[in-house]
Amino acid sequence: MKLAILFGGSSFEHEISIVSAITMQKVFKKTELVNIFVDSNREFYLIDKKDMKSKYFSSADYKKSKKLRLEHGGFITPGMFGDKKIDFDALINLIHGRDGEDGKIASMMEFYGVPYISPRLEACALSYNKLFTKLFAQSIGIKTVPYEVLHKNQPRDINTSLPVIVKPSRLGSSIGVSIVKDASELDYALDVAFEFDDLILIEPFMSGIKEYNQAGCFTDKWELSIIEEPHKEEFLDFEKKYMDFSRDGKVGEADINLEIREKIQESFKKIYGNVFKGSIIRCDFFESDGEIYLNEINPIPGSMANYLFEDFEDMIIRLTKNLYFEQNIKIDYQYIHSIQSAKGKA
Amino acid sequence: MKLAILFGGSSFEHEISIVSAITMQKVFKKTELVNIFVDSNREFYLIDKKDMKSKYFSSADYKKSKKLRLEHGGFITPGMFGDKKIDFDALINLIHGRDGEDGKIASMMEFYGVPYISPRLEACALSYNKLFTKLFAQSIGIKTVPYEVLHKNQPRDINTSLPVIVKPSRLGSSIGVSIVKDASELDYALDVAFEFDDLILIEPFMSGIKEYNQAGCFTDKWELSIIEEPHKEEFLDFEKKYMDFSRDGKVGEADINLEIREKIQESFKKIYGNVFKGSIIRCDFFESDGEIYLNEINPIPGSMANYLFEDFEDMIIRLTKNLYFEQNIKIDYQYIHSIQSAKGKA
Repeated sequence: MKLAILFGGSSFEHEISIVSAITMQKVFKKTELVNIFVDSNREFYLIDKKDMKSKYFSSADYKKSKKLRLEHGGFITPGMFGDKKIDFDALINLIHGRDGEDGKIASMMEFYGVPYISPRLEACALSYNKLFTKLFAQSIGIKTVPYEVLHKNQPRDINTSLPVIVKPSRLGSSIGVSIVKDASELDYALDVAFEFDDLILIEPFMSGIKEYNQAGCFTDKWELSIIEEPHKEEFLDFEKKYMDFSRDGKVGEADINLEIREKIQESFKKIYGNVFKGSIIRCDFFESDGEIYLNEINPIPGSMANYLFEDFEDMIIRLTKNLYFEQNIKIDYQYIHSIQSAKGKA
Repeated sequence: MKLAILFGGSSFEHEISIVSAITMQKVFKKTELVNIFVDSNREFYLIDKKDMKSKYFSSADYKKSKKLRLEHGGFITPGMFGDKKIDFDALINLIHGRDGEDGKIASMMEFYGVPYISPRLEACALSYNKLFTKLFAQSIGIKTVPYEVLHKNQPRDINTSLPVIVKPSRLGSSIGVSIVKDASELDYALDVAFEFDDLILIEPFMSGIKEYNQAGCFTDKWELSIIEEPHKEEFLDFEKKYMDFSRDGKVGEADINLEIREKIQESFKKIYGNVFKGSIIRCDFFESDGEIYLNEINPIPGSMANYLFEDFEDMIIRLTKNLYFEQNIKIDYQYIHSIQSAKGKA
C-alpha cells in the first residue's frame, strides 16, 4: 500500500497542515507515503521523506523539490525523457481550511480521477461553513447550539445575551474566534472575526458544558473512535490547537455513561450518513442535561484524529479499499442526433 | 474583450451544454469568443468557431481539435516550440449539471486563478442539491414548496398526498422528474428518479399555479431581467427543455401586477445576496394567492438566460469587470517559527 499525503494549501491553516503531515510520517508504520506539498501559490511539489521537517517549508527550501503537475489519473513529474506519473493507491487530503476543507481539492481529485480519502465536494461545502452545518444538522434532526448570523455590512445589533462566542462562519482551528463577556469587548471581537469572513455566527457561551469528540468513518462497516473529552480551557486558541495537530500518542476515553455514549455514536452516524463517505471526520459535541448538541464537524481533523483510534493505519487501508466514486455518465449524443434528424441535418 | 466559453463536461446535461454554447456564438456580437470543450473523459479541447456545430461533437470530430491543459493562470496548448497560453479576459462556465453546477469547475478556476463567470463553489453546492436549496431558502426567509425526502435504501412510504412530483435531488433540466397522479405509478417514478440520484424529493403537484422566472446578476449594480412566465405544459420534459436551451430571441414580459413583480425581484435579490456574486442565475418561482415560493435556482441557466435581458452582452462585459475573487492569504510561517524557537530549533 502506498498513500499520498497532500498538505499545505492557500489556507490560514497552511502551517497546521504541515504539522499534520509531519505527524503522519510517524503514524504510518507499514505504509509507504508519498508527500505532496501545495505551496501558498498553489504549486505542487514532491517532498522527500527526509525533508519532511517544518523548517524545510518555512525556509522556502521546498522550492528545490520536484514540481508536479495534476493531470488525468494523477500527478506528473515533467522530465527531459518524458513525463512520469507518481504512483500511489490513494491520496489523503490533509489540507486544513481553505482549498482542502472547502471542496476544491475534492473537486480536483474527482475531476482528474484520483482516488482520494477526503470528504467529497458536497460534504465539504456543508461542513466548511458553520451556518450550513447548522442547517444540515437541523434537517436530519440533530440539535445544534442556538445561533444568530451577522453579515459584514449589517448593523451590529445582536440579540443573544452575553457572554457570547463570536465565530467566522468558514474557518476552523479557532482562528478569529472570541468569547465576549462584556459589551465593551463586542466591537473588537466582531472586527477580528470579520477580518476572516464576511459572515459570522454568534452563539451563547455556555460555561460548565461538557465537550466530547467522536471521530470515525465507514469502510465496509462503521469504525468509530473512542470518545475523547478534550482538555477544557475556556477554549483552545490557535497556538494550543496548533500543538494539538502534532498529536500521535493515544488518549484516554472520556468517562461517560452508556446512554450518552450511545447518543454521541448515533448522532455521529446520522451526520456521517452517505454524505461523508470516503472520509474520516471528527464531530465535536456538547452535552448538557443529557442532551447532545453538534458543535462542529471537522471534515479533515488535525493529524486525522489518529490518536483516537486503536488501529488507525489498518482502518485507513480498509477505507482505501472502500472509497466512493462518482457515478459514471455515458454520453451517447442521442438528443443531438434526434434534434439533427428533426432538422433534417442528420 | 475576449471571453472563453467552457462547455460539455461529464454530465447528464453534456449535450444541453453544447447547445447552450452554440447559441452563445450568435448572442455575442462584439465580443471575441474562445470555445473550450470538456469531453466526457474530462479532456479539454480548443474548438474553432467554424466547428461550433452539434455534429462536430456527436461525431467525435472534436478529437481533431487541439488539446488543452489547465495550469496556473489558464489553459495551455502544449506545442513543439514550447507551451502557449490561451488568452482571454474571463471564462464563462457554461457546463450544465455535474462538473459545472456542482462546484468542480468553480473550484478549479479558483485554484488555478482563472477569472470566471459562474456561481462560486459554495453557491454551486447550495443550488445543485435541491434539498440544500430548500434549507438555504428557509434560512433567509424565502418560502419553498413543501417537500419530503426519500433515500434510496429507505422504505418507500410517502406522506404527501397525490398527485406528487418526484425529483432527483441533484439534477436539472427535468431529468428523472415525474408527475405521479395514481398510486400505481409511484414505484416506477421512484425507480426512474433513483437511477439518477440516491436522494430524491417529493413535492405536492400544484396544478393551476403560476410560474415566473427571474434572472439577474450584480455587477456594480443590480441587473434584473424581465420576468418571464414560461410556456406551461404540465411541466417541460427533457426534450422540450432541450430546445429551450437554444433560445436566442427575446421573450415578452409576464403580465403581473406591481406587487407580485416586486416580491419576485426582492426574493431574487435576497437569494443572490453575496452568495451568488460573479454569476448570472435564474430563479424559478411559483405564485399562489399572492405568495411567492422558490421552486429552484438555476445556477447556470440554459444559454445564460440571454433571451430575458435587454442588453445581455453589455451586462456580461460589466460583470467581467466586477468579478469576485477569493481573499488573498499571506503565509509567513510565524507559528512554525515560534514553535521551532520554543523547541530550541530555530
